[in-house]
Amino acid sequence: MGLELYLDLLSQPCRAIYIFAKKNNISFEFKHVELFKDSVLGRRTPGGNNPEQSRAAQSQSAESGKLNILKKVPALKDGSFTLSESTAILLYLSRKYNTPDHWYPSDIQKRALVDEYLSWHHTNIRANAPKTMWIKLLIPLFTGQPLPSEKLQEVMEGLSASLKQFEEKFLQDKLFVVGSEISLADLVAVVELMQPVGVGCDIFEGRPRLVEWRDRVEEAVGKELFLQAHEMVMNIKELSNIQIDPQLKAQLAPVLMKVLQ
Amino acid sequence: MGLELYLDLLSQPCRAIYIFAKKNNISFEFKHVELFKDSVLGRRTPGGNNPEQSRAAQSQSAESGKLNILKKVPALKDGSFTLSESTAILLYLSRKYNTPDHWYPSDIQKRALVDEYLSWHHTNIRANAPKTMWIKLLIPLFTGQPLPSEKLQEVMEGLSASLKQFEEKFLQDKLFVVGSEISLADLVAVVELMQPVGVGCDIFEGRPRLVEWRDRVEEAVGKELFLQAHEMVMNIKELSNIQIDPQLKAQLAPVLMKVLQ
Repeated sequence: MGLELYLDLLSQPCRAIYIFAKKNNISFEFKHVELFKDSVLGRRTPGGNNPEQSRAAQSQSAESGKLNILKKVPALKDGSFTLSESTAILLYLSRKYNTPDHWYPSDIQKRALVDEYLSWHHTNIRANAPKTMWIKLLIPLFTGQPLPSEKLQEVMEGLSASLKQFEEKFLQDKLFVVGSEISLADLVAVVELMQPVGVGCDIFEGRPRLVEWRDRVEEAVGKELFLQAHEMVMNIKELSNIQIDPQLKAQLAPVLMKVLQ
Repeated sequence: MGLELYLDLLSQPCRAIYIFAKKNNISFEFKHVELFKDSVLGRRTPGGNNPEQSRAAQSQSAESGKLNILKKVPALKDGSFTLSESTAILLYLSRKYNTPDHWYPSDIQKRALVDEYLSWHHTNIRANAPKTMWIKLLIPLFTGQPLPSEKLQEVMEGLSASLKQFEEKFLQDKLFVVGSEISLADLVAVVELMQPVGVGCDIFEGRPRLVEWRDRVEEAVGKELFLQAHEMVMNIKELSNIQIDPQLKAQLAPVLMKVLQ
């Protein structure tokens, strides 16, 4: 049994792993997990122009539930070995498949700068960017009403502060976070920053340095792969007019509201 | 110029780095940073039975401010190289000083399990445990009034859920997170779990498996070093009766309240 990756490309960390594995020609079985299983998002026909996802789209929720007792994607299964947490999965893949050095440089200081970003990411970009999707799409969809605009403004302010730090501390005047080549830090950052874009909060607007950096990242991983990985999230707004099962609404609305408190 | 570590042992990640460096006989200059500079916590005579801290206790805030533009401890300076984020610092030290393998095993699967824990830690144990100190000590100190007990209960429930996952997913029936020897995962976890204990929320009570694990971790790093690193946080309750500068109160109270919203 070969490498299996349990992914939902609506999720940012899943996209990082998908792009990393594809770009490095790592052979894996794509196990499609539906983050919003039985929800409107789960009822979509997954795949789009991605044949691997369509083939693997039959429900594997029981299997993935057993795999990852924290019930999160992404998850990795390699023989009997299972692993969760996107950072751990990316590092495992880089070591097992001996991917090019620039992804996680062997130079001790450069490697430390990648580690530094990956750690900072958790409590900054990662803590703010996903909330734009909850506010703009998921909460209105599940509660039936939009959130007050101050809520979005508050999240955007937090995100702005994180982006300022990202530009000033991490990117500076370099091409990528650790210098002239792409690393895991850039990949993990860019997939997160595409999430607000998908729901109409274009956080790249008015930030030319960030736009140039994103263009370089896209170029480095390949534009086609980048677009393919982001196809679902770029079309997510289409979902906002669909009716949802009332029982599911009642169940998920308070959970979503709590996350934003 | 040798290795410098900017630490405040009131901070959990700083204690992890302090214990790791000491246990592995890594020579460093202890640069004492006062997290609550000019606050009541900052006015303490630092050091206690720790002569290194006392020697280095003169204010180095300007220097450390320049060092770490994110204005956080811990920070590392090694010649002209600077680094923030405790995970990155621990990994850098383990590589540069070639510490014993068990801390960050070269076995690819064991290493992945340490990475998995370090990543999970951010959004679980780390997201909950420190709030106990804010609720029980810092917010009452700065706002002049205690928080409603439901607030503490809510945080304790979140922490309980994290501890359950820690026991069931990470610790299981092993001696340590990745097997029979201590790793960075255990160290990072234990310093965080001692923070609630310091303010009277003994989260080890009623969790015998967790108590046995903590005893093993203490034994592995050395009881004396463990106690020395935790001396300040174990005596932190003494601070609760001290008067604080009104201006500082006015400045910090809303910040502390916001963190808990």
